[in-house]
Amino acid sequence: MELHVAFLPAEAGDCRGRAVAVIDVIRATTSLLVMAERGCDGVVIAPTLEAARAFRAGHPDVLLAGEQGGRAPQGFDFGNSPAAFARADLAGRRVVFATTNGTRALHFARGAPVVLIACLRNRSAAARVLMDEAARGGLDITLICSGREGRFGLDDAYTAGAIVDAILRTASPAPVLTDAAAAARVLFEAYPDAGTLLPTTWAGRNVIEIGLEADLAVCAELDRSVVVPRIGERVRLLNE
Amino acid sequence: MELHVAFLPAEAGDCRGRAVAVIDVIRATTSLLVMAERGCDGVVIAPTLEAARAFRAGHPDVLLAGEQGGRAPQGFDFGNSPAAFARADLAGRRVVFATTNGTRALHFARGAPVVLIACLRNRSAAARVLMDEAARGGLDITLICSGREGRFGLDDAYTAGAIVDAILRTASPAPVLTDAAAAARVLFEAYPDAGTLLPTTWAGRNVIEIGLEADLAVCAELDRSVVVPRIGERVRLLNE
Repeated sequence: MELHVAFLPAEAGDCRGRAVAVIDVIRATTSLLVMAERGCDGVVIAPTLEAARAFRAGHPDVLLAGEQGGRAPQGFDFGNSPAAFARADLAGRRVVFATTNGTRALHFARGAPVVLIACLRNRSAAARVLMDEAARGGLDITLICSGREGRFGLDDAYTAGAIVDAILRTASPAPVLTDAAAAARVLFEAYPDAGTLLPTTWAGRNVIEIGLEADLAVCAELDRSVVVPRIGERVRLLNE
Repeated sequence: MELHVAFLPAEAGDCRGRAVAVIDVIRATTSLLVMAERGCDGVVIAPTLEAARAFRAGHPDVLLAGEQGGRAPQGFDFGNSPAAFARADLAGRRVVFATTNGTRALHFARGAPVVLIACLRNRSAAARVLMDEAARGGLDITLICSGREGRFGLDDAYTAGAIVDAILRTASPAPVLTDAAAAARVLFEAYPDAGTLLPTTWAGRNVIEIGLEADLAVCAELDRSVVVPRIGERVRLLNE
């Protein structure tokens, strides 16, 4: 079994025959996980704010979430803030969530029989589901990092490394690591913890600049959840 | 001044206003450097074997170099072997060199006012020229890794990290590192030396498989040369 990391979505290549986890740790995949932790009944991922607004117009019971300059746009119930979702009661509610970056990464995962939402909070659980699915279906594994504006994001690469690390500690036989998977693991091992690293990354600095530093603490928590949202189940793409 | 690393050519973005170094340490940029070290009068980089053959048909004095399955194709004077170039007397000779990977990386560097050929052998010298050019022209710096078949290559990322390291040890004020530049430096620091790392990388394993392990020793030598070939001078692209 091959274990690969795409540091940017465009590097993912052909995902048929691969179990995939999509990572946008600051903040989209952390937000999606926290929504699930809070009992959210389902999330529809929309590629743009306009698409999310249009979906809500047709489904007035749905909560509207998304970001513009990092914050909730006018008329939205939520931004893309894991800390805000963590305080919300979402039991039985549905959310439409506009995330450009996340949508892009998910687009490149198309063709994969399994697409999971991963971040630091669920990294061991995500690693376990990836291994189970790979073993059952004879699949290879790809971790797709979202990056930021077409550039490598250290936050996502570190998170991919955390998942590689969890897989290597439990998989038998050990998977074959691509160069990128080996590099991701080195990055994970190089930093003492995510709480130290995330505020120094480009994505982390942007979140601090807009006054949402509390989000980083939620993004940095390792192995706090056993929930692993799956595309096509609790989370679906608009127009799927 | 911003210092960025593109782990794949397609990540390089707009290179106007940037001093660029292209890296394909196993083996194209190491080969190009060794050709220069051996007194080669000029290299024409061709995108395909056919283009190289056609160029030589019109210039019978030119030596023909390139690779097919890692080795010299029928009728070629050289493959893409730094060890073979290191044994050759190239004083006053011109070479046409077919390298698909290198051509691709150089294509993405177009628009840059300065494009250098970098590898481990000339990493400190390349760092120095990049800093001089950046200071003189008010430029940012991008190191473009070639990767391999559209995937991240640990050999190139490590080499980029070696150059980041050399720049940080001498630049004042220190450049602003992008996430990718910070990650590359971590990778460089994580391995004891290139001689240990390169044989474990995908590119390195391929070279060993075809029996050219001696090339890796040449690729792994750090700071052995002060030559920094420059596109448009000693090295030019076919049809430029």
